[in-house]
Amino acid sequence: MEKIEALITSYVKEVDLDALALYAQVATGKRLRAKLILKIAGENDRSLKLAAIVEMIHAASLLHDDVIDDASTRRGQASINALYGDKTAIMLGDILYSKGFLELVDFEQEIAQAISDAVAQLSVGEMLDVTLSDEINLDTERYFEMIYKKTAVLIEATAKSAALLCGKDEKAFATYGKNLGLAFQIIDDVLDITMSDEQLGKPALADFKEGKTTLPYIYLFEALNSDEQTILNSLYKKELTDDDKRWIKTKMQESGAVMRAINDAQSLGREALIAIKHDQNSDLERVITDMIEREF
Amino acid sequence: MEKIEALITSYVKEVDLDALALYAQVATGKRLRAKLILKIAGENDRSLKLAAIVEMIHAASLLHDDVIDDASTRRGQASINALYGDKTAIMLGDILYSKGFLELVDFEQEIAQAISDAVAQLSVGEMLDVTLSDEINLDTERYFEMIYKKTAVLIEATAKSAALLCGKDEKAFATYGKNLGLAFQIIDDVLDITMSDEQLGKPALADFKEGKTTLPYIYLFEALNSDEQTILNSLYKKELTDDDKRWIKTKMQESGAVMRAINDAQSLGREALIAIKHDQNSDLERVITDMIEREF
Repeated sequence: MEKIEALITSYVKEVDLDALALYAQVATGKRLRAKLILKIAGENDRSLKLAAIVEMIHAASLLHDDVIDDASTRRGQASINALYGDKTAIMLGDILYSKGFLELVDFEQEIAQAISDAVAQLSVGEMLDVTLSDEINLDTERYFEMIYKKTAVLIEATAKSAALLCGKDEKAFATYGKNLGLAFQIIDDVLDITMSDEQLGKPALADFKEGKTTLPYIYLFEALNSDEQTILNSLYKKELTDDDKRWIKTKMQESGAVMRAINDAQSLGREALIAIKHDQNSDLERVITDMIEREF
Repeated sequence: MEKIEALITSYVKEVDLDALALYAQVATGKRLRAKLILKIAGENDRSLKLAAIVEMIHAASLLHDDVIDDASTRRGQASINALYGDKTAIMLGDILYSKGFLELVDFEQEIAQAISDAVAQLSVGEMLDVTLSDEINLDTERYFEMIYKKTAVLIEATAKSAALLCGKDEKAFATYGKNLGLAFQIIDDVLDITMSDEQLGKPALADFKEGKTTLPYIYLFEALNSDEQTILNSLYKKELTDDDKRWIKTKMQESGAVMRAINDAQSLGREALIAIKHDQNSDLERVITDMIEREF
């Protein structure tokens, strides 16, 4: 990962020194996308460069996301918009996007197209996420469309591009990436409900308050009787009391809503494993098994 | 121009229908960049497509610019951020940028690189513009660096790409585009001082209030005595009274500061004309002569 960090640093530095100082303060996360590329295509100049590009684009999307969501923290650290204001976060995002695209032009057209198509859909995903937060959403199809565009589409394009880079079956890896991305987002949405503030490094049960009706909430709503549905409805976008929180957490477990969402993630994970079975890549398999076997 | 509008509409529609409804409300302007491409490369499928892409990218940069500058109008119309909020403007900008890049991948690498490199510098230009607005700037070099990145760099890349598209001398056309862009921005900065609110379709003398020390202000400062410099300094970033406005306008003319800036624009224009003299393209020559001979 240090080689990728060094590449990103040199790319940002090529554009602007001020941007580099800012970029140094972006919370970088687990580098899932970069790791995927190296695990699929092995480590070489091309795969390292592609990994750096994808991580720059991902960071850009998070910078704009945090502005759009008014998020003050990112992975337990202060977000750039919280530290330096929305404008700086927008500009740094634009710099990372455009430098990412500039370097992407060096790659085969199919790869450049896959990644830039994903970014276009990612931007639509941002918009869909905001639209879906206007009112409670009880439609799983719209939920899946949103998490596909907001999360899975870039992971799908990343895995596909890595396969193209090394001549592997790009459709199989695209399926792997898409399913991994969807499962990953569902589990993220589950953890918002099942974990404590301390475990998350940010306030728990924040999604519903922010207008996000994630999959467990849709399933919970389906399982509740009409009186309970009225209660759940009344808590939408509200500051929750400790009693409210306990009620939601209890109902989520009792109704099996959380378990149903976890099952969905696990079956997506299994499909991902089937797609790349022929590759016999234990590293890629472990990404999935670690995710679906973790504690909730 | 209708063919280009239709192409942009179909591109935005391919990404997202909601985005199309929003895009229809963006003030589109004179389409200088699109016209340049058609005038250099002639009208054909490739030049129309490139023109649509460049205009989408330009629109995206203006959407983000208006958020960063808190601008409530754009070319006399309400801006998207004023109509629908900053978040919508950021997202629509991201959609236009990313769809523009996606379509750009269809072009030769040299063209894709020229345009995407320009966008990276454009983002840095946004940042530089904000930094330069922190305090009064009396350095012409920093002013020229900023207007190069904020305005000229995309026009330069546009003209260069159009030349590459039709096998003309790309260096000559890059020089033409760069000089046109610089001259264009200087004149825009002059008009903020010399024109009335009605002529501009927006409040005049807005730049200095917004922290922008444009070229005529730098020249004015150089020409004033120290007492007058103190007065000018005291007006920086302030709401101007009618007396203040009259004082600035009078001093701008008396000191020759406005004329000096116009002369700079004109000599850049003449350099642009020399660069493309061999092409004997009266349309392209008229773009420059119209600009440098207009009324101030």
